[in-house]
Amino acid sequence: MSLPAPLDQIAVRRAVEAALAEDLGRAGDITSAATIPGSAAARVVIAARQPGRLAGLQLAAAAFQALDPAISFEPEVEDGARLGPGDVIARIVGPARAVLSAERTALNFLGHLSGVATETARYADLIAHTRARICCTRKTTPGLRIFEKYAVRCGGGSNHRFGLDDAILIKDNHIAVAGGIEAALRGAKASAGHLVKIEIEVDTLDQLDRVIREGADVVLLDNMPPPILREAVMRIGGRMLAEASGNVSLDTVAAIAETGVDLISVGRITHSAATLDLGLDIALG
Amino acid sequence: MSLPAPLDQIAVRRAVEAALAEDLGRAGDITSAATIPGSAAARVVIAARQPGRLAGLQLAAAAFQALDPAISFEPEVEDGARLGPGDVIARIVGPARAVLSAERTALNFLGHLSGVATETARYADLIAHTRARICCTRKTTPGLRIFEKYAVRCGGGSNHRFGLDDAILIKDNHIAVAGGIEAALRGAKASAGHLVKIEIEVDTLDQLDRVIREGADVVLLDNMPPPILREAVMRIGGRMLAEASGNVSLDTVAAIAETGVDLISVGRITHSAATLDLGLDIALG
Amino acid sequence: MSLPAPLDQIAVRRAVEAALAEDLGRAGDITSAATIPGSAAARVVIAARQPGRLAGLQLAAAAFQALDPAISFEPEVEDGARLGPGDVIARIVGPARAVLSAERTALNFLGHLSGVATETARYADLIAHTRARICCTRKTTPGLRIFEKYAVRCGGGSNHRFGLDDAILIKDNHIAVAGGIEAALRGAKASAGHLVKIEIEVDTLDQLDRVIREGADVVLLDNMPPPILREAVMRIGGRMLAEASGNVSLDTVAAIAETGVDLISVGRITHSAATLDLGLDIALG
Amino acid sequence: MSLPAPLDQIAVRRAVEAALAEDLGRAGDITSAATIPGSAAARVVIAARQPGRLAGLQLAAAAFQALDPAISFEPEVEDGARLGPGDVIARIVGPARAVLSAERTALNFLGHLSGVATETARYADLIAHTRARICCTRKTTPGLRIFEKYAVRCGGGSNHRFGLDDAILIKDNHIAVAGGIEAALRGAKASAGHLVKIEIEVDTLDQLDRVIREGADVVLLDNMPPPILREAVMRIGGRMLAEASGNVSLDTVAAIAETGVDLISVGRITHSAATLDLGLDIALG
Amino acid sequence: MSLPAPLDQIAVRRAVEAALAEDLGRAGDITSAATIPGSAAARVVIAARQPGRLAGLQLAAAAFQALDPAISFEPEVEDGARLGPGDVIARIVGPARAVLSAERTALNFLGHLSGVATETARYADLIAHTRARICCTRKTTPGLRIFEKYAVRCGGGSNHRFGLDDAILIKDNHIAVAGGIEAALRGAKASAGHLVKIEIEVDTLDQLDRVIREGADVVLLDNMPPPILREAVMRIGGRMLAEASGNVSLDTVAAIAETGVDLISVGRITHSAATLDLGLDIALG
Amino acid sequence: MSLPAPLDQIAVRRAVEAALAEDLGRAGDITSAATIPGSAAARVVIAARQPGRLAGLQLAAAAFQALDPAISFEPEVEDGARLGPGDVIARIVGPARAVLSAERTALNFLGHLSGVATETARYADLIAHTRARICCTRKTTPGLRIFEKYAVRCGGGSNHRFGLDDAILIKDNHIAVAGGIEAALRGAKASAGHLVKIEIEVDTLDQLDRVIREGADVVLLDNMPPPILREAVMRIGGRMLAEASGNVSLDTVAAIAETGVDLISVGRITHSAATLDLGLDIALG
Repeated sequence: MSLPAPLDQIAVRRAVEAALAEDLGRAGDITSAATIPGSAAARVVIAARQPGRLAGLQLAAAAFQALDPAISFEPEVEDGARLGPGDVIARIVGPARAVLSAERTALNFLGHLSGVATETARYADLIAHTRARICCTRKTTPGLRIFEKYAVRCGGGSNHRFGLDDAILIKDNHIAVAGGIEAALRGAKASAGHLVKIEIEVDTLDQLDRVIREGADVVLLDNMPPPILREAVMRIGGRMLAEASGNVSLDTVAAIAETGVDLISVGRITHSAATLDLGLDIALG
Repeated sequence: MSLPAPLDQIAVRRAVEAALAEDLGRAGDITSAATIPGSAAARVVIAARQPGRLAGLQLAAAAFQALDPAISFEPEVEDGARLGPGDVIARIVGPARAVLSAERTALNFLGHLSGVATETARYADLIAHTRARICCTRKTTPGLRIFEKYAVRCGGGSNHRFGLDDAILIKDNHIAVAGGIEAALRGAKASAGHLVKIEIEVDTLDQLDRVIREGADVVLLDNMPPPILREAVMRIGGRMLAEASGNVSLDTVAAIAETGVDLISVGRITHSAATLDLGLDIALG
Repeated sequence: MSLPAPLDQIAVRRAVEAALAEDLGRAGDITSAATIPGSAAARVVIAARQPGRLAGLQLAAAAFQALDPAISFEPEVEDGARLGPGDVIARIVGPARAVLSAERTALNFLGHLSGVATETARYADLIAHTRARICCTRKTTPGLRIFEKYAVRCGGGSNHRFGLDDAILIKDNHIAVAGGIEAALRGAKASAGHLVKIEIEVDTLDQLDRVIREGADVVLLDNMPPPILREAVMRIGGRMLAEASGNVSLDTVAAIAETGVDLISVGRITHSAATLDLGLDIALG
Repeated sequence: MSLPAPLDQIAVRRAVEAALAEDLGRAGDITSAATIPGSAAARVVIAARQPGRLAGLQLAAAAFQALDPAISFEPEVEDGARLGPGDVIARIVGPARAVLSAERTALNFLGHLSGVATETARYADLIAHTRARICCTRKTTPGLRIFEKYAVRCGGGSNHRFGLDDAILIKDNHIAVAGGIEAALRGAKASAGHLVKIEIEVDTLDQLDRVIREGADVVLLDNMPPPILREAVMRIGGRMLAEASGNVSLDTVAAIAETGVDLISVGRITHSAATLDLGLDIALG
Repeated sequence: MSLPAPLDQIAVRRAVEAALAEDLGRAGDITSAATIPGSAAARVVIAARQPGRLAGLQLAAAAFQALDPAISFEPEVEDGARLGPGDVIARIVGPARAVLSAERTALNFLGHLSGVATETARYADLIAHTRARICCTRKTTPGLRIFEKYAVRCGGGSNHRFGLDDAILIKDNHIAVAGGIEAALRGAKASAGHLVKIEIEVDTLDQLDRVIREGADVVLLDNMPPPILREAVMRIGGRMLAEASGNVSLDTVAAIAETGVDLISVGRITHSAATLDLGLDIALG
Repeated sequence: MSLPAPLDQIAVRRAVEAALAEDLGRAGDITSAATIPGSAAARVVIAARQPGRLAGLQLAAAAFQALDPAISFEPEVEDGARLGPGDVIARIVGPARAVLSAERTALNFLGHLSGVATETARYADLIAHTRARICCTRKTTPGLRIFEKYAVRCGGGSNHRFGLDDAILIKDNHIAVAGGIEAALRGAKASAGHLVKIEIEVDTLDQLDRVIREGADVVLLDNMPPPILREAVMRIGGRMLAEASGNVSLDTVAAIAETGVDLISVGRITHSAATLDLGLDIALG
């Protein structure tokens, strides 16, 4: 798995400035102003305190440098790196006040995104012996979607839709109103641009057969137990991609992947990942 | 515990519009446009699928109504409510396309914030027999601090600082540069406005004694085991508030609270809370 | 061809407010303020002065109502309608100052987008006897992409990518750096999410053969004369969509479409469409 | 004609960042990320493919440099330059991914604004033997007014009002409500600040006589054929500026200019200018 | 003097939302949340505590209604009204929390702008027996220019330029670099659009004579004592407007006005006006 | 009194860019463009014309550098400095057009904030022999609160609340609705986070006694004459901070301070401070 391409720096800068504003409020870092001389310098080492995968270096660097462009931020590893406890992630040197003021914002981004990458990697590692890939959903934290999607890639996962507009995903509600699978798929094909893929959700093998007859790019096999998934994969026969979803956990993911599905989408890698514990050692001078 | 005051509607509207823009992208909800007639109506029921505490109704309502002011959103319970599996949270009625387009954004807010409230309540319930309160930290998700702080209150917790600017919190790094506890506290008192409280972190009882002599509003007792915390509380003797932090888990929180501390700050209630699983039943017509 | 789904109202409101700010400047409409009593009312009829296709009613309505929510805007036709000279488009009634202040902004949007729809329809009408569809490009007016893409649909066209992120389009430069068609396509497939389509540009039939062997979703046949296009369509044999581009004009489009291609992309429907001439009749009272 | 002063860089940066965001969307340039190594460099030459006038170099440069400040952008000519087919406009060198990602945004600005400058120059060149100047209107593309006004100057034209607030222009509707030409002009004079000019539209020589008696800075002679315009200019006798408008085309503009009017305003130089065709040659390494 | 036209409501809403955000911060009005029941209602009367002129009612109303659209705001007088101590300005009724939370923002706008109007009126009243008008400058409070310019009109004054872009004002520095009065005026005339007025600053009668020969729309007579001003007005003889500036105070303004100048510009009406003292009586229920 | 910590540069940049946009409008500085060659350079000296205190250097520097990063801005003194007439504040060198275009924005910030600092210092100097400190209020200019609060510190004053959210201040209206002083204080204590101070306003000594019994962090003694203030300070006996407010003027402030109160809050230092007169000498070359 190659590393994901870097994030757009304009988006990074905007997110970081908003987060800093949220933390600095109106009066700024009054503790540092009161206790740290303006001339003091700081050296910081960020290290992992638990095993995991790294994501978010650009945001962390931007947080420090937004407060003072003179701060140097030297990463020791790259996003996507596997971390062990104690592994050094980055070294930061610069004016102490700015370093301390930016610290929490930098760590909030880095810990959160590394948490997403780590949780993704946990799932991805369990299915590395299969052809299946872990992918994310639209169940992301409001405001952070592009960063969480990036973190999923850092963790070895793949991205599902980025939003409602970049692919068609027909769910049971759409089918019900459209008047059935055939009508929904025909409506979608008539309406979609030629660069838009169409995925449709099915709950039963009967529904699947109708999708196979009508044709789609991807079929979402929702909440099917592994034996049914295996049968579904056989019926599909490579004519569409097969995505499994529903009740995916660290206990069940391998069995699901072994059915031959192409993708397994997991909401909790974005909506419920715990932060990665990062240590921070500051030497002030 | 009374309910927290409602969130500022201007902040709610801005966050919701940004999250909708993130999901709608440029082309909007192309699936609903392709499969749902513009005239179709929808009725939605949001219900809990697991026990928990509710937070975020205003954001969920705003997500639906931002897409179509004609959508009605009728909550069955209030933020802060204890939920059991199957409990109905709200009923939504309106144009089907708008309802479906807003659904994910509404649930992403509601699930995330209810997750924070639920995790907070887990801790708070374990210490209800003591005088201690659970409080949050600045380890929040970038962009969502005011909403997560609100969710902490919904879960029965209390709020720590909202940012770097609304209270002074002197940590070990500040003490080191300032030249000791006494110098740091004197600098803080000379600099702080008269409505700014001063908290200082200590790691040992010796440090605590020096803080007691010098005076502060709150002392943060970091990573002390319960017997030391108990001794610290005795030495403080009510002259300052005592806040415990570090290694707080569901297993340890009760013992910590029983030492007599006033507050226990827990990062994971905001940075590592899993989303609350919410069910959604849509009837389209 | 069914009508496109309405534009997102939040995006409409933002674009309209920005355009009004651009026109009102700091001092606002000083002519109306100086010559029109605050109590005067106006009735406006917007009509077509030349044949065309309509696009942009939501933006026009929003321009009037942003200045005064009391203004009523009653369309007589819908976006996508074929207009003849003199056809009434909408009737507006409200406070005269606000109506006059919003007029130019409303017409600038409506004329520009109807111009795009009209130019699109000119092309689309010439190929209505074939299976080909006209589609747009990313050669749009900065800031107006989502509105121009919508206008293309109003004119009977289809949408290409909305941006760099919603589909892969491998051009000659990408091929050159990647090390050839095969390497570029394999890189794209390895990197793309499962809901992302892949298109690749070819200039020769030899290149086309290599694409056919390697596989892609869409092939862009660039600057090929109709006989070559016809041969290309035959070689493709329905395994991919075929899109023609380059040197497409009102004189050549029919011949291109008759080669059997699925899509013909035309930059000038967005980057060079003349405004549609709209008449406006104001009765003040 | 001297060159116009440069555009405000803050406005340039904001417009360019918005346009890049529109193109990069959420996932960024996924084609370049998939096919171009991060270390590859590119050299680009932008050249004209048809004769025209150049406008928009600052925006093009800003588009490249917003994505990577390391990109060098060296113009070979200045805004306002007359271009022939093949003339080199600028040379760009930098990281290939960033160069390719910014290319379309840069060209969309440069082609659109050069199109406006070119169309303006077409009119201006036809009246160079007279004292008249071509000027623009408020019929501009929403969001791009300041740039289109600048492009008009690059093409040798002059600017009319920038908005509703920087001059008074009394049209027939204002006259009707105000109760006649005299009342409207008196209202305007009583209300206008001392640095605000007053222009008034007339359709007949009778109306013109009343304006001459009452006094104004500029009179807009709307839809008058050249003989009437000539008579109007004589009656005005230099006491006001005379601006002709209505039915101005490349066929009629010289005759209108030869009547002696000072200004001829033309909507189509901004609302209907075709993009200038620009060639782009990329060498990647 | 007629009342100025109302402010643009979009600009009002943006300014008010920014000011409320500045005051509400992250946690909102924690005092009202802690002490006022959500169901309590409030009735407020705003009254003048000192004589003055009113300006800013729209902003005050918007501040209350932004926090709760259910709040009614009924003005008793209009902007521009002369106020005596105790005069009731407006009556506000609505939910107590929202009323109290918005109070300070509303009063900050209303007091500041009424202060500007009041100071303007002080000067204007002293010269009411002459033909001169008081006008403002660009010495305004950053961010509030359009509102302060409006307040100047409410106080009976007239507006100078709104910015650097809506008129040409050639000062001594420009003259020095341009190479003299004649060169500067010719450059300005060659460059200015036909709806842009040209003003030029002179310090001596000799300079004035050169301006008269060259021609301009307005001449700024800077720091001239009344006898010189009187001579200047005579030399100008109505061919240009004459504006006096420099050392204008309540003591000197009448003598300056009696020289026959058309305008007297006064920086202190915007940059140094004291707030108007407003009383506020709240009845809660 | 040590100097206040510098302002957050992100906030400075945003405020300055907004103020420049307000002044440059759409067409920019048309006077400089018409009269100053693009290659001309300027040297500026900013000096005080009257005695005062300096505040706002960062904003002034940012105004020049936002228009051209090549401009050098060298301060001769620091914010907080006492200025005498003629004292040089800063020297600016750079391209003449950019320097002249930024001049007014830079001076508007610098003059306004220095005016606030100067007015603050006037009060602070009069009470330097006492233990009392001057503090500001929330009666600030909308949009400029953080800068005015900073200017207050530059003038030797202290800051009160920055907004409604960073401390509780219970006023008479809150007391009335809450049902009395005791109920209000208990509600506040139950609701406030542990880092939030509580202040309460009293008008009489009886009220004060009730506050003393109930406990608070600060008591606001509103509109009490010095003898009553003295009695109040005695009754408080150091258990709370005592803040005096109401009818504070340069004539009364010393007598108030001599009563022993800790703080004296003065609205007029922010809402009614006159600008500090700054001289500006430009040498162009």
